[in-house]
Amino acid sequence: MNEVASGGWLRVVGLGPGSEALITPEVSAALAEATDVVGYVPYVERVAPRPGLVRHGSDNREEIRRAEAALQLAAAGHRVVVVSSGDPGVFAMAAALFEALEAGEPAWRALDIQVLPGISAMLAASARLGAPLGHDFCCINLSDNLKPRALIERRLRLAAEADFAMAFYNPRSKARPEGFERALGVLREACGPERLIMFARAVATPEETLRVTTLGEATPAMADMRTLVLVGSSQTRQIPCNTVGVPWVYTPRSALGSDA
Amino acid sequence: MNEVASGGWLRVVGLGPGSEALITPEVSAALAEATDVVGYVPYVERVAPRPGLVRHGSDNREEIRRAEAALQLAAAGHRVVVVSSGDPGVFAMAAALFEALEAGEPAWRALDIQVLPGISAMLAASARLGAPLGHDFCCINLSDNLKPRALIERRLRLAAEADFAMAFYNPRSKARPEGFERALGVLREACGPERLIMFARAVATPEETLRVTTLGEATPAMADMRTLVLVGSSQTRQIPCNTVGVPWVYTPRSALGSDA
Repeated sequence: MNEVASGGWLRVVGLGPGSEALITPEVSAALAEATDVVGYVPYVERVAPRPGLVRHGSDNREEIRRAEAALQLAAAGHRVVVVSSGDPGVFAMAAALFEALEAGEPAWRALDIQVLPGISAMLAASARLGAPLGHDFCCINLSDNLKPRALIERRLRLAAEADFAMAFYNPRSKARPEGFERALGVLREACGPERLIMFARAVATPEETLRVTTLGEATPAMADMRTLVLVGSSQTRQIPCNTVGVPWVYTPRSALGSDA
Repeated sequence: MNEVASGGWLRVVGLGPGSEALITPEVSAALAEATDVVGYVPYVERVAPRPGLVRHGSDNREEIRRAEAALQLAAAGHRVVVVSSGDPGVFAMAAALFEALEAGEPAWRALDIQVLPGISAMLAASARLGAPLGHDFCCINLSDNLKPRALIERRLRLAAEADFAMAFYNPRSKARPEGFERALGVLREACGPERLIMFARAVATPEETLRVTTLGEATPAMADMRTLVLVGSSQTRQIPCNTVGVPWVYTPRSALGSDA
C-alpha cells in the first residue's frame, strides 16, 4: 500500500482505571465517532457495543500485532480508537503504536494520529490514598517481560538513593512471582523496614481494595497484576483518618526540613 | 471548633492542563454541587460563575493558608472544591491540604475529604509528543522554593544513571533563572549532547507550543513557568511525521535490545 485512504484516523486513548466518571470527554467523543475499537479484550469490553462500531479484542502480549492491525484499518479509511486502561502513554499502547509505526509501511506516516491522555492508575491510586506522590517520584514497571531483572533492581536502588516516592506497575506475574519478593527485599535493604508501602488494587472499580503498611510488614501476596504499588519517600507521612478505611498518606511538598 | 457542621465536604480536584475536554466527569459533578471553589486565581477563573457558587481566588505561594481556609469552610458545612491545574497530587494542592489537615484543628479529621485525579501536564504533554514516558520514568519539580538546589542536581544525576525518561515541572522561575541553566548543564554532562529534550508549553490551550531538540541545542530560554520539560532515556527515539509540526517521540517498551 503506497497511500492511505481519506477519512481515516487513529486515536490511542486512555480509558482511565475503571470508572466511567474518570473517562475524559475528549476520549468519549473519539469513541462516539469511531468505526473500530482495538485493544486487549477486557478494555475493549469497557466500550459499549453500538451499530456501526466493530470491536476488535485481542490477547495480552499482542501489542505490536494489535498496533499494526489498527494502523492498517486507519490506512484503509477507518476511524480507529486503540484503547488502553489508565493512560495510553504509561506502560500501555502508545509506545507499541509508535514502534509499529516506525517499523511499518512508510504510507502510515501520513496518517492522522493522536494520543489522548487518560487518568493513569498511578494518579488514581494516589488520589484515593491522599497525596503520596506530592514530591519528586519515579514510576517503574516491575515486569521482567521486556527488561532484565538486574536493571529493575538497579533502578530500585538508584530511586531509593534519590529518595523518590515510587509507583510500581505490574508488580507480580503468575509466571514469575519471585520477582516481586526480590524487589521488596531490595527496597527493604535500601529504605529500611519502617518505610511506607501502599497496595491499591482495582482502583475505581467495585473490587477496589487499599492497604497501607510498611516494607517490614509487606508480603508479596499483597500484590497481584491488578495492583498498583506505591512506596513513600523518607518524608512520606500518614494521618489516621481517611474515610475510605485506611490512613491518609502524603508526601510533603518541602524537602527543607520541618521549619521550611 | 470541636465539631464539624453536617453536610460539608471537601474535594481536591484536578482541572487538567487547560482544555474543558480533559476535565473528568467526576470533577465536573463535584463542581456542579459545590458552594465554594478555592484556589490560585487563574485556576478558580476556569470555573464558570453561577448563582450559589462563591469563588475564592488567592495568590500563588499561599497554599497552606488556602488549604486552611478550605478546611474551615468545609467544617462550617460548605461543599468546597479546591482546584489545581493538571492533577492535584502532582506538585499541586493535595499535599498542601494534608499538611494543613495534619497540623490543624483535630475536628477537621472527621471531614468528608476526597482527592479527585486529573490529567497531569506530564501525561498531556507526553500524549501530544507521542509516548516519551513509555518506559520507566521520573518526575522532578525543578523549583528550589521548597528544596535545596543541591538535592535537585543530585536527583538529576541519579535519574540519568538509572536511565529514566524524565518529566520536569516548574523548570524556570523569574526570580532564579540560573537554576534551569545549571540543570541543563548537569543533564548534558550525565546524558550527553545527543539526548532528546522536549519543551511543551501551555499544552491543551490555544497558546500551546511544542519543541523537540537535543540537550546540546537546548537553551534555558526555551522554558518558562508554563513549560513542561521532558528528557528522553538513552532509548528514546523520534519519527519525523507528527501532524502537530514536531516529530513523534517515543520510548520503546523494551530494554532488552532491538531483537526483543
